[in-house]
Amino acid sequence: MSIIKTATLQLSVSEDKRANLKRLSDFMDKPELSGADLITVGEMFSCPYDTLRFPEYAEPMGGESFLYLSELSEKHGVYLSAGSIPERGEDGKIYNTAYVFGRDGKCIAAHRKMHLFDVNIKGGQYFKESDTLSPGNSVTVFDTEFGKMGLCICFDFRFPELSRLMALKGARLIIVPGAFNMTSGPAHWELLFRARAMDNQLFTLGTSPARNEKASYVAYGHSICCDPWGKTIFRMDEKEGICLAEIDLDYADEIRSQLPLLSARRDDVYSLSEIK
Amino acid sequence: MSIIKTATLQLSVSEDKRANLKRLSDFMDKPELSGADLITVGEMFSCPYDTLRFPEYAEPMGGESFLYLSELSEKHGVYLSAGSIPERGEDGKIYNTAYVFGRDGKCIAAHRKMHLFDVNIKGGQYFKESDTLSPGNSVTVFDTEFGKMGLCICFDFRFPELSRLMALKGARLIIVPGAFNMTSGPAHWELLFRARAMDNQLFTLGTSPARNEKASYVAYGHSICCDPWGKTIFRMDEKEGICLAEIDLDYADEIRSQLPLLSARRDDVYSLSEIK
Repeated sequence: MSIIKTATLQLSVSEDKRANLKRLSDFMDKPELSGADLITVGEMFSCPYDTLRFPEYAEPMGGESFLYLSELSEKHGVYLSAGSIPERGEDGKIYNTAYVFGRDGKCIAAHRKMHLFDVNIKGGQYFKESDTLSPGNSVTVFDTEFGKMGLCICFDFRFPELSRLMALKGARLIIVPGAFNMTSGPAHWELLFRARAMDNQLFTLGTSPARNEKASYVAYGHSICCDPWGKTIFRMDEKEGICLAEIDLDYADEIRSQLPLLSARRDDVYSLSEIK
Repeated sequence: MSIIKTATLQLSVSEDKRANLKRLSDFMDKPELSGADLITVGEMFSCPYDTLRFPEYAEPMGGESFLYLSELSEKHGVYLSAGSIPERGEDGKIYNTAYVFGRDGKCIAAHRKMHLFDVNIKGGQYFKESDTLSPGNSVTVFDTEFGKMGLCICFDFRFPELSRLMALKGARLIIVPGAFNMTSGPAHWELLFRARAMDNQLFTLGTSPARNEKASYVAYGHSICCDPWGKTIFRMDEKEGICLAEIDLDYADEIRSQLPLLSARRDDVYSLSEIK
């Protein structure tokens, strides 16, 4: 069985952590989500996307937000890619961490953003995540009843090496909580999701927060899903909302057999590997 | 000095090798090309794109076509990326080889296509290059007065590892003689050139033969140039023609300093390298 019913939740984000979690819970209660297998949420969906404030919102793995999200996934019996939230690691450092919970509420994947977003575009966006965040160090792939999936966060997705490694580890869908801005979003968001899908012949699913023009960091929105042929299945607008889709992961195998890109790699000429 | 005047020649291809070479020469004589620094031509521009016929057209490096192309570049004092032609190697094998000649007619780069195009798309294209061709084994970057450039051929460009390695070796422009078909062209040609440009923050320049509906392999055309921000500078139609452009390779450095993608790679987590 490889057909997944996805529900992408592009949520508005306030400064109130508990209100943001409750908002997710209210959305998950909506009747149109009743048949969903996989629910996805955006990057930093429970706090403002503001580097200086991440420490104040950070919680350890297993903390209040984590437990709330685990209970939500169990209550609804769904896979929940709970966007990302600031994590306070056992080392005291702050991470931008994405959790995925299984139908039974167990955490089946945790990915710490490994490429921090430090940028200074002329006349555009300035942002320095590394002011307060530390990077993770792992390529994240996890098993589900639908097969393997990959997980990374926003800026991570810019690096073709990472998506390739996830594909080589067996991912047929890459889940990406993200929050592109009003500079990079119009220029690169859809291009990136289409290109990674085309190159690696898998589905890509990006979930953004809804746009808030009053926020210090204005998210582009436009949550998106692309198929293994590089075609956009859906692209939301910038407003809060839900997008439902059905994706058949076996389509990745079909495309890979017709146009054998992964197997035609010249791994006798170049080598790409994860350093352990 | 980093501003290059490019002239992209999207040429019609006949079965007559010498007529194809003469056609290139006639185009290079046109007055609008007089200021060009770099002239580019498409994949297999001097023979039909037909695997079974490559051996009959193949010549050694230094053969008749090679010398003709060298003389053309010297005569006009330009860099000439002479598309690709079938090469008969010193080992007797046939390669799909791209040559670049400098202003003095010297061959400054030779790239043998390293990913052979074997494909069988349902209801679409069937093609098996490896029936008659052997693959090259090198990542090709070369020096010019404008800085370093990379060179690969068509299907090679599908593999993100190769473009990344060229970028890491210093390329700020990747030249790609190519001939996508009527299945892959509409779906992937522009997406690919934009994506590689965006990911590696460099210029990409793809030159196709003009479309010939009567050929056994129908080329998509649409020769293209994209900038380091992933924006399409020009995209030709399917007909024979010339497209002139000016590209400033320093713009690659500007984009790389604003959005530091190459330097933000996590080469402590993953490793990409050329196997020597």
